[in-house]
Amino acid sequence: MSGKFQLNAWYVAAAADEVGRAPLARLLLSEPVVLYRRGDGVPVALEDRCCHRRAPLSKGKIVGDRLQCGYHGFTFDASGACVAIPGQERVPSSVGVRSYPLAERHGFVWIWMGDARKADPSRIPDFKENVASGWWPTRVLLPIKAHYQLVIENLLDLSHVAFVHGETIGSDDTRATLDWDRGSDYVKLTRKAPDIATPPFYLLNGMAPRSDQVKTITFIPPCFVSILVTTTERAPEKAKPRSLNILIHHACVPETETSMHYFVVSARDYEGDAALADKSHQTLMKVFNEDRDIIEAQQQCIELDPASPYVSTHLDWGSVQMRRMMNELIEQEAAALQAAQ
Amino acid sequence: MSGKFQLNAWYVAAAADEVGRAPLARLLLSEPVVLYRRGDGVPVALEDRCCHRRAPLSKGKIVGDRLQCGYHGFTFDASGACVAIPGQERVPSSVGVRSYPLAERHGFVWIWMGDARKADPSRIPDFKENVASGWWPTRVLLPIKAHYQLVIENLLDLSHVAFVHGETIGSDDTRATLDWDRGSDYVKLTRKAPDIATPPFYLLNGMAPRSDQVKTITFIPPCFVSILVTTTERAPEKAKPRSLNILIHHACVPETETSMHYFVVSARDYEGDAALADKSHQTLMKVFNEDRDIIEAQQQCIELDPASPYVSTHLDWGSVQMRRMMNELIEQEAAALQAAQ
Amino acid sequence: MSGKFQLNAWYVAAAADEVGRAPLARLLLSEPVVLYRRGDGVPVALEDRCCHRRAPLSKGKIVGDRLQCGYHGFTFDASGACVAIPGQERVPSSVGVRSYPLAERHGFVWIWMGDARKADPSRIPDFKENVASGWWPTRVLLPIKAHYQLVIENLLDLSHVAFVHGETIGSDDTRATLDWDRGSDYVKLTRKAPDIATPPFYLLNGMAPRSDQVKTITFIPPCFVSILVTTTERAPEKAKPRSLNILIHHACVPETETSMHYFVVSARDYEGDAALADKSHQTLMKVFNEDRDIIEAQQQCIELDPASPYVSTHLDWGSVQMRRMMNELIEQEAAALQAAQ
Repeated sequence: MSGKFQLNAWYVAAAADEVGRAPLARLLLSEPVVLYRRGDGVPVALEDRCCHRRAPLSKGKIVGDRLQCGYHGFTFDASGACVAIPGQERVPSSVGVRSYPLAERHGFVWIWMGDARKADPSRIPDFKENVASGWWPTRVLLPIKAHYQLVIENLLDLSHVAFVHGETIGSDDTRATLDWDRGSDYVKLTRKAPDIATPPFYLLNGMAPRSDQVKTITFIPPCFVSILVTTTERAPEKAKPRSLNILIHHACVPETETSMHYFVVSARDYEGDAALADKSHQTLMKVFNEDRDIIEAQQQCIELDPASPYVSTHLDWGSVQMRRMMNELIEQEAAALQAAQ
Repeated sequence: MSGKFQLNAWYVAAAADEVGRAPLARLLLSEPVVLYRRGDGVPVALEDRCCHRRAPLSKGKIVGDRLQCGYHGFTFDASGACVAIPGQERVPSSVGVRSYPLAERHGFVWIWMGDARKADPSRIPDFKENVASGWWPTRVLLPIKAHYQLVIENLLDLSHVAFVHGETIGSDDTRATLDWDRGSDYVKLTRKAPDIATPPFYLLNGMAPRSDQVKTITFIPPCFVSILVTTTERAPEKAKPRSLNILIHHACVPETETSMHYFVVSARDYEGDAALADKSHQTLMKVFNEDRDIIEAQQQCIELDPASPYVSTHLDWGSVQMRRMMNELIEQEAAALQAAQ
Repeated sequence: MSGKFQLNAWYVAAAADEVGRAPLARLLLSEPVVLYRRGDGVPVALEDRCCHRRAPLSKGKIVGDRLQCGYHGFTFDASGACVAIPGQERVPSSVGVRSYPLAERHGFVWIWMGDARKADPSRIPDFKENVASGWWPTRVLLPIKAHYQLVIENLLDLSHVAFVHGETIGSDDTRATLDWDRGSDYVKLTRKAPDIATPPFYLLNGMAPRSDQVKTITFIPPCFVSILVTTTERAPEKAKPRSLNILIHHACVPETETSMHYFVVSARDYEGDAALADKSHQTLMKVFNEDRDIIEAQQQCIELDPASPYVSTHLDWGSVQMRRMMNELIEQEAAALQAAQ
């Protein structure tokens, strides 16, 4: 497990509706960040530490488009430049706090934690189903006290579903086949489980007791996993058996080296009624709390002896590739920084 | 105070009735251990950390005689061998977790934390009075946030009883005489207090207001102390003055370097009525909570400045010997390990 | 920020009425201290760690003028000498705990943490208004989880009042002028704010809506700040406009390197009625809790990255001088100690 983070990358900083006209403090990649919106609604992210006496700016107040420190009134504009110091006329141009490039997309506010000149919004992962018509989303925001890669790993080996989520979405699918693929900037797994007992959640949708299920899992660095679950009932007597899609976009954003912010949007391609929407949300909450329980226990177990060995099986191919890819990216970034100095 | 533990030794892992058909997690000597019973009742202790992704096995479930990880279903038999990996046919013979030799005796499950080939149950301390007929036991299990040797030290200098336990078992016995003896594998103290005010607990037994009391305290490495308390009333007018024995076996099992599991069984050689048995238990609870209060405060005080000096008196002879013996044993073990490599 | 403390200095150990016939444990400059009063009322401060087995003496009991350890009964007189060890006749003269010079003055018990031979009570700061007639005091004792110099800094830059205490004592006084002065053993600031909106608290006193305010702030090493606030109403129509003085003595006593004990006495030079006295206390509580909130947030922000840079303005002249003076004093003390060895 890496002890560092990739900096030149987009991360989810917050759900769009978490950011408003009151300062929002959020620790991201071990850096204190404060988020707010200007009067015109454009989101702003600044270093959450006044350059004067290091009070968190999130304890201050928004004045127009600016953020005023709640301790001595130093005031910063959306670029991080200090524009007012109470008690003096001039403000030296060198005074200010760091600002972070942001982009608002797919229901999230995205932040770039590295070199601002490299922040290209076209590199933001495509999570359009979070907000697209024809998709019905439900959302979970969950703090998890574990290294973010443990959660990515959780998603890249869905054999855990049968054991952790037996009461909701799990089914005995241990005979599933797994295909894999790795490109320079993704890891992709396809898990096909034919003829399984239809999981409880899908039975609610009136599907037949047995189904075929295909899960396509795509990891995108540094912390994103999208999972498309296609469940097709086994109903040969029907002209057109029901087939339902759920597309879940996960952002596993590091808070510190041992904690993370979990942003999940699960979108169905069928609306259903209000009871179904409610059940969908309850199920999602239960599933991710089950994940949190086992992953936080795993983190604690690792901390007891970080050098304890562990073995990987062919089902871990995805997470092994993910760790390798992240190590390469982080090392490349460190080497480039070194070379630039 | 040593920063390590003796590994080649028996420790109490749990009271026998704590171990059943649900996994019990217990941290012993800073190692995570999970305990359970096979279908035939035989207790099992495994490393509480799956060799796959390091989730604690105690979050899993017992399937027959085996323990199945609650994360991805790796399954281990009572020897620690991995016998099933979901999604693959073969399990390499090298895959498994550590198992620990156990023995069930004297109402406890005993565990051997070192080299399994050296685990000889005949070396388990003789605590038979915990369960023998003619003895009426009461039990206290108590976590204490202190180095285990601080608790052993507490037991090896019973001059504390007058100050810490004045309301229960204490009496002003500062004129007691103390004899001592040390062998290669024990430290023994005999404390004789003639003509003391009979402690409150014994007054309940209808004894005369003054008594003679003899306490024989035996330390057995690495963490056991047995105390036989013989209290004889001063009643020269009686043909046969009452004399009562209480034998208390203590196991001070390290959890970490700053915490321990306290297993205490106090057995009387007289039955008494239900009220007495209840009073006996209440007294024991109060006594050991009083000990815990002062010892945890002592631990915190030591942590403020671990190098702060302290003086010993002749009453500390026992604990000085105990520390010396434990240091020798731990160093011998480390040296043997070094030589074997 | 210094990582050490000045030892040869008087500190406030406790308010006088906190010290009585029950032991009071207090951590001062990272040292455990126990305070109590002898039978004749004279306060005593001893090392709060028995020299025998390092139990805190504050868990023991006062016997006459002496303190008896609650673990094994070692007993210490007010000089720290051990005068009784249960179970033995003689007590070696070398056995004892440290005692600290104390002085009781201005409603406080003052302690000298360094070389006792240098403890000269004439060097205690003059806080006589805490108890003098003609002054009406109110008091706040507050633990703050921050380095003590952050609280001193808070007091040496009162431009924070407008931002942190807007609902109580603050007013927009950013046009205030600031004069400064530094001697070998003090830093003095004079802040004059002409024609300000009279702060809410003073309006309660029936003053005119606008006032002139002069604040004289004096720092005395190692941790004292006295502030005289003179508020004069702008009422040219009156023969004698009202002018009120408040004198606030602050002791910012280090508990550890990241926490402190805050002792504040604010004295008015006018009695007012009971409602005013009550309001005065409520205001003071609110003001210092507001300070605590922002300072503890600042401390946490600094701990996230202790090397994060910060800039100072001319308003920080006082705190810059204070830090320089404290660094010099601490270095001089260390050098003298070095030379003496």
